[in-house]
Amino acid sequence: MLHLHDLHLYPLGLLWADPSLLAAWGGISAAGGASLDLYKTKRDIKYCFYDLTNNIFWRSVVIKTTSAATTTTTSESTSSSSSKSTSSASSSASSISTSSTSAKSSTTSASSSTTSSERHFSSNPKCKAAVAWEPGKPLTIEDVEVAPPKVHEVRIKIIASGVCHTDQEYLTGQFRQFPLVLGHEAAGIVESVGPEVTKFSQGDKVIPLFLPQCGECERCLSPKTNQCRKNWANTQAGVMADGTSRISYKGQQVYQFLGVSSFSQYTVVPDTSLAKIRSDAPLNKVCLLGCGVSTGYGAAVKAAKVEERSSCAVFGLGAVGLAAIMGCQAAKACKIIGVDVNPERFEKARLFGATECVNPRDHAKTIQEVLLDMTSGGVDYALECVGSPVVMTSAFESTRDAWGTCVIVGWSESEAINIKVEKILMGRTLKGTYFGDWKSVEDVPKLVDDYMNEKLKLDEFITDQLPLEKINVAFDHMKKGIGIRTVINLWPEETTPTVDTV
Amino acid sequence: MLHLHDLHLYPLGLLWADPSLLAAWGGISAAGGASLDLYKTKRDIKYCFYDLTNNIFWRSVVIKTTSAATTTTTSESTSSSSSKSTSSASSSASSISTSSTSAKSSTTSASSSTTSSERHFSSNPKCKAAVAWEPGKPLTIEDVEVAPPKVHEVRIKIIASGVCHTDQEYLTGQFRQFPLVLGHEAAGIVESVGPEVTKFSQGDKVIPLFLPQCGECERCLSPKTNQCRKNWANTQAGVMADGTSRISYKGQQVYQFLGVSSFSQYTVVPDTSLAKIRSDAPLNKVCLLGCGVSTGYGAAVKAAKVEERSSCAVFGLGAVGLAAIMGCQAAKACKIIGVDVNPERFEKARLFGATECVNPRDHAKTIQEVLLDMTSGGVDYALECVGSPVVMTSAFESTRDAWGTCVIVGWSESEAINIKVEKILMGRTLKGTYFGDWKSVEDVPKLVDDYMNEKLKLDEFITDQLPLEKINVAFDHMKKGIGIRTVINLWPEETTPTVDTV
Repeated sequence: MLHLHDLHLYPLGLLWADPSLLAAWGGISAAGGASLDLYKTKRDIKYCFYDLTNNIFWRSVVIKTTSAATTTTTSESTSSSSSKSTSSASSSASSISTSSTSAKSSTTSASSSTTSSERHFSSNPKCKAAVAWEPGKPLTIEDVEVAPPKVHEVRIKIIASGVCHTDQEYLTGQFRQFPLVLGHEAAGIVESVGPEVTKFSQGDKVIPLFLPQCGECERCLSPKTNQCRKNWANTQAGVMADGTSRISYKGQQVYQFLGVSSFSQYTVVPDTSLAKIRSDAPLNKVCLLGCGVSTGYGAAVKAAKVEERSSCAVFGLGAVGLAAIMGCQAAKACKIIGVDVNPERFEKARLFGATECVNPRDHAKTIQEVLLDMTSGGVDYALECVGSPVVMTSAFESTRDAWGTCVIVGWSESEAINIKVEKILMGRTLKGTYFGDWKSVEDVPKLVDDYMNEKLKLDEFITDQLPLEKINVAFDHMKKGIGIRTVINLWPEETTPTVDTV
Repeated sequence: MLHLHDLHLYPLGLLWADPSLLAAWGGISAAGGASLDLYKTKRDIKYCFYDLTNNIFWRSVVIKTTSAATTTTTSESTSSSSSKSTSSASSSASSISTSSTSAKSSTTSASSSTTSSERHFSSNPKCKAAVAWEPGKPLTIEDVEVAPPKVHEVRIKIIASGVCHTDQEYLTGQFRQFPLVLGHEAAGIVESVGPEVTKFSQGDKVIPLFLPQCGECERCLSPKTNQCRKNWANTQAGVMADGTSRISYKGQQVYQFLGVSSFSQYTVVPDTSLAKIRSDAPLNKVCLLGCGVSTGYGAAVKAAKVEERSSCAVFGLGAVGLAAIMGCQAAKACKIIGVDVNPERFEKARLFGATECVNPRDHAKTIQEVLLDMTSGGVDYALECVGSPVVMTSAFESTRDAWGTCVIVGWSESEAINIKVEKILMGRTLKGTYFGDWKSVEDVPKLVDDYMNEKLKLDEFITDQLPLEKINVAFDHMKKGIGIRTVINLWPEETTPTVDTV
């Protein structure tokens, strides 16, 4: 195992500049039975070791940096957590079961500068989760363990989670490692927080976010993007900042999904991927703001910047598409055309603001030709909410020249769109949006406010509510195009009203 | 031939609403040996007949409309022009040769409302032009006739014309009818104006424009686009508003190119496709603002809106690409990477502001991989100035995620770009530009000012100047990648200094 006193041998600049060196360190420490976290505050760089063999034991090392950050002093403090379960602190977070814990404690003062962090962690609690064991296979409900939150992590009790097409797409198994707990559109309550977490407290209502907003990086400081990359590589790989998942099944690591994994009664998320929302928000409704509704709505009002009296076409009338229609209506577009091969969705589309609906199968012409005819030359804005490259090309070609804008909203990781050069030269714009261009931590609470103030619909998206045990029914309905959104209630046995007011 | 008194039989609304009816009228009148022009002022709708068998004879018919435009009164006045050559009015426009003219004159006052238009037209003058007789074949210099300007048309003496890749592309013959006079990047002097022309006078220095700006349509009134479509279908088809070209060779119609045809000593253009410029501008330099330089420069500063301290890559270091580099520098980008397979262009690229140059052939990696390495993740702006779909994909993929913008500048009418969905979803934008997003009539004179005030380079683009007779040499050099821009001097025998100050 790595000797902590070796730390000072590495110039700090090099440590931070060279990810491979960090990875090597992580590897050494992991091989030694511990995981390594590195994190940085304004004044210090800290290294935390989690002793995996002793469950709740942890210690932190602080290297005080000068402003030039070339010389370092090293100190270490080691403290054990108590075995007190955080679940006892709140009835709403009380269902977590704790296993036995052991703790070791030792303190070494290596220099004059010592940071002692005292935190309370429960051991790995057991709870229910829907596990995807193999690509394309139905999920099975298992008793998983959800480890305590580490540095800058928050453990939350998931109350409700929507089932999104992205969950389905990743269940095919092309892009993620298995076993895996899917789910990324959820709402819950903070159960416990890890070290250095300052913005969340036990009992806070929250929406976990697959898109972080650290608030400090170049991207967060820019108004041009919402695409913060804090912990990105790890969350995309299904693990947390230390390279491991907090979810396990009988000792086997179960990968997390996009840093969320909301098809589990508890999960752990980075504190930069979590939005604190108002305490009166109904979690089984506002969970939809964790992905689909925010994405579609923002695609219209933020990404496309739909203008008053403009014409719009929305391709795909699932939850994302309907939310896009809602956004077009909020932006006061005068013509909003819903496009779907499933005419059963047209009534709902009109409810959300569609002025017309078109089924491409009703026409001998291509859908872009139909739309050009309907709008005397094309729509001002086209929003693709299907995730199909063929539909993307149609959407692009349905925009008018001179200023037509096509926003790609539907997700597809592997494919390519065909764009005719002449059409792009004639003044069209093609752009994409991720999470509707919202700055996640900052904007999601505002969207919750909009819902509470009846400026934004959510209830109308929900066509089914199911317990976790029936999650495969939700996937099945999605495949068959039945309904719009199924919300999974993770704790159906908890009666309302509760402290959650869900 | 159509009886003018029949005009009142047609309700005005129908006349204007039904293009086929107008076309039928044009056909009737043309068959009768006359061409028909229809034009509208704020209060009147006028019909002008040009008697082709009598060369300079013309008459106008005015139908006064009420505000409701449902009842009309018809009047007609017929006047002949004098046979005086307009060329005698200015030494700079004196080289036009006039053929014999005949005139008929009759005046009929059909009602109390009479408009009498007195204009002076020369007959069809003969002058030199480079004619493309067949796709892909060298041009030949011919004595063509350039007919007088009709309603809202201006006849100009072309002083200088750049030879652009677009000329070469259309010489391949896939998209245009032959015989054809190419050339669209020029500057000249007004020789005469047709009826209803109010903004130009004989002797004005002008730059003809392949992109109109009528100043009245929805597009001209919008800040979002420069893509006015006044006379578009006709100029794209090689003819003027009345469906015919003003250029002919021994009675055979020779098609015009993009409403310009500047490889001719004289040409006729719509008055909404012409920019009046300052009288001290050297025409053999500012001609480049008619296409290439404006396009590339505007692609950077107007279309991409390159920001201070940003990183840029410009693909293709011909005139358009070099102008794009100049635009990036004007926008104070800190990293400007020129990309070309011809390293001979790198020195010039550095002169225009490139901070680095890359030859894709020097690398085993793809050019987008090379650029990602050079910029730690991609450039903020990529500008494709080649016109190759493969290069377009490279340019797009060389932009950074989150806010990378790729602007397609190079022209390709027939092909398609391959765009990976994930890359567009991760915050990139793909857009095109036509004429650098400049509002042509309004902005080109400002660009001329910028050149005169040394804010914009032009001389440095010109690597060769040739007389019209050697125009095939210019095409040959372009094919071989020799030099940047060849300027054709249409009147090399005219010595400087002249009234033109060219």
